[in-house]
Amino acid sequence: MSLKGKNLKIAVVGATGAVGREMLVVLEERKFPIKELVAFASPKSEGKSVHFAGKNHACRVLKKGCFDGLDIVFFDASDEVSREWVPEALKANALVVDHSAAHRMNAEIALVVPEVNGDAIQNHRLIAGPNCTTAQLVMVLKPLHDHFNLKRVLVSTYQSVSGAGTRAIDELKSQVLDPTISKPEVLKHPIAFNLIPHIGSFDQEGHTSEEKKIMEETRKILNLPSLKIACTSVRVPTLHGHAEAVTAEFEKPVDVAAAKKVLNGFPGIILQDDPITNLYPMNLTAVGKDEVFVGRLRKDPSVAHGLMFWIVADNLRKGAALNAVQIAERMIYVS
Amino acid sequence: MSLKGKNLKIAVVGATGAVGREMLVVLEERKFPIKELVAFASPKSEGKSVHFAGKNHACRVLKKGCFDGLDIVFFDASDEVSREWVPEALKANALVVDHSAAHRMNAEIALVVPEVNGDAIQNHRLIAGPNCTTAQLVMVLKPLHDHFNLKRVLVSTYQSVSGAGTRAIDELKSQVLDPTISKPEVLKHPIAFNLIPHIGSFDQEGHTSEEKKIMEETRKILNLPSLKIACTSVRVPTLHGHAEAVTAEFEKPVDVAAAKKVLNGFPGIILQDDPITNLYPMNLTAVGKDEVFVGRLRKDPSVAHGLMFWIVADNLRKGAALNAVQIAERMIYVS
Repeated sequence: MSLKGKNLKIAVVGATGAVGREMLVVLEERKFPIKELVAFASPKSEGKSVHFAGKNHACRVLKKGCFDGLDIVFFDASDEVSREWVPEALKANALVVDHSAAHRMNAEIALVVPEVNGDAIQNHRLIAGPNCTTAQLVMVLKPLHDHFNLKRVLVSTYQSVSGAGTRAIDELKSQVLDPTISKPEVLKHPIAFNLIPHIGSFDQEGHTSEEKKIMEETRKILNLPSLKIACTSVRVPTLHGHAEAVTAEFEKPVDVAAAKKVLNGFPGIILQDDPITNLYPMNLTAVGKDEVFVGRLRKDPSVAHGLMFWIVADNLRKGAALNAVQIAERMIYVS
Repeated sequence: MSLKGKNLKIAVVGATGAVGREMLVVLEERKFPIKELVAFASPKSEGKSVHFAGKNHACRVLKKGCFDGLDIVFFDASDEVSREWVPEALKANALVVDHSAAHRMNAEIALVVPEVNGDAIQNHRLIAGPNCTTAQLVMVLKPLHDHFNLKRVLVSTYQSVSGAGTRAIDELKSQVLDPTISKPEVLKHPIAFNLIPHIGSFDQEGHTSEEKKIMEETRKILNLPSLKIACTSVRVPTLHGHAEAVTAEFEKPVDVAAAKKVLNGFPGIILQDDPITNLYPMNLTAVGKDEVFVGRLRKDPSVAHGLMFWIVADNLRKGAALNAVQIAERMIYVS
């Protein structure tokens, strides 16, 4: 059954969250063919409404039969919500785009960044979107891998508080105004003027779940199951936008000019790399934009065939809402 | 001529700067044997005074003969000031500790972090202290190298604005209070809620001078002239403290337990590594302390004999003032 050309009944689960709100903005901006929008939120958001296409939509809570008649359901809530309710949405015959981590590493479920592995969407009714840091990383690694063959990747992240939700944004804002508010409620430590090298939970080896997501999801999306990759994930006191300092080693010889050319030709990437005019990707200029920004390209002086670069993207856009909507756009055409 | 046991005539050049002010605090805390303190500052600080040991000291400007009779002169001003005035201080027979970059890479001048290569001080009358990011890095690399033989080091830095001086601190403070103040005067872009992957100036290959300092100074201090090392330096919106995400590869097999043991036994290092209690180095807990804090130790899953870790230190302490005073303390005993 093709949904192409039809106006659709769409639901966003987690519509009042940081990603959910951005989702409504992106759906409207991209003129997604919507006949009816249903906003689901947790019981604690009952009575709240969200704004979409000039109208307020009262939030509903998830309950048996709530997905009946829907064409597409976007999940932007917790892993637990997705684990419980994605099967219900599928049973109700909806297509599902799940931004949670619940299904990403399931071998039978496609994990997709459309520009990178959009073909994986075909014949799937449930598609998972990756972790925000993974999305912007694979966007840059994909064209480089296609030309120079990736061998090893090392990533240090600089992640904004919006990745931890709207309450974390409020937390940083109040802490910078009044540093005596030292008791954090969302993050594990005060984040104003501080750095927290801890996102998610720790495993036995000392990696965080965030770091493991980047490693595992990058391998899956690039279809490089034995790619050598390591990561340090750090929460920094920025509001929006994630940045990554990346060192990549390739099988083939690589130089900066060739890499720039390859990146420039890839959809969704903007090269910002002009030291003379102090041009490089920054949160300040990347936030609110759809593209992934890459710059500071230079040879890694410590290895043959190595390249270093700096990536910034809006974590709520390409890292979440935009990527989910792009997936849905592809699903409409290939389902 | 040994200065041991004497009370000394000391000068701090750049006494009103971020490092200079910290220098006065550290000299007092460590009960450095001072008979007389002279505070030098630039002509624009004329009329200002600094506080030391319960007294105000009017700032003087540098002029011919100003170092006569001084035992030790600390330089905490610009490279230009050091280039012009360090030779004058040496001519006046003073011992000199230069924190600027002016003399660091001169093959005839020792570049010292006392715990790492303190012996290099012997028979020198001018000693250079390293860049703040280098100091905390070599503190951690040295004991690991001694046990496991360093092969390659990759560093991503998270550097606070105090590294750019007191005016940069004021700049960040005003920007977080009023984000409409968007015109930066000290840094190249607004830093509040932003990240700037640019410290210093760019070279032809795309590295910044800050990144090159870390690479070159680390090789010199560790006496490993062909060490493979690469770095990305980033200014982040923290006030004090520099952090570094490090990946190090060794010749010999290394495991986390052995590395922890080695680090624990090294003077000036505090291991903070207990994921269960959310304990790892942070600016919040490292600032104002003398030690270099290291944690998040784990095996690098992307290479044999690789280790990843996270280092935080107070950039004005071990990264600058404390290191300079420690150098002077050693000079008193070995000169």
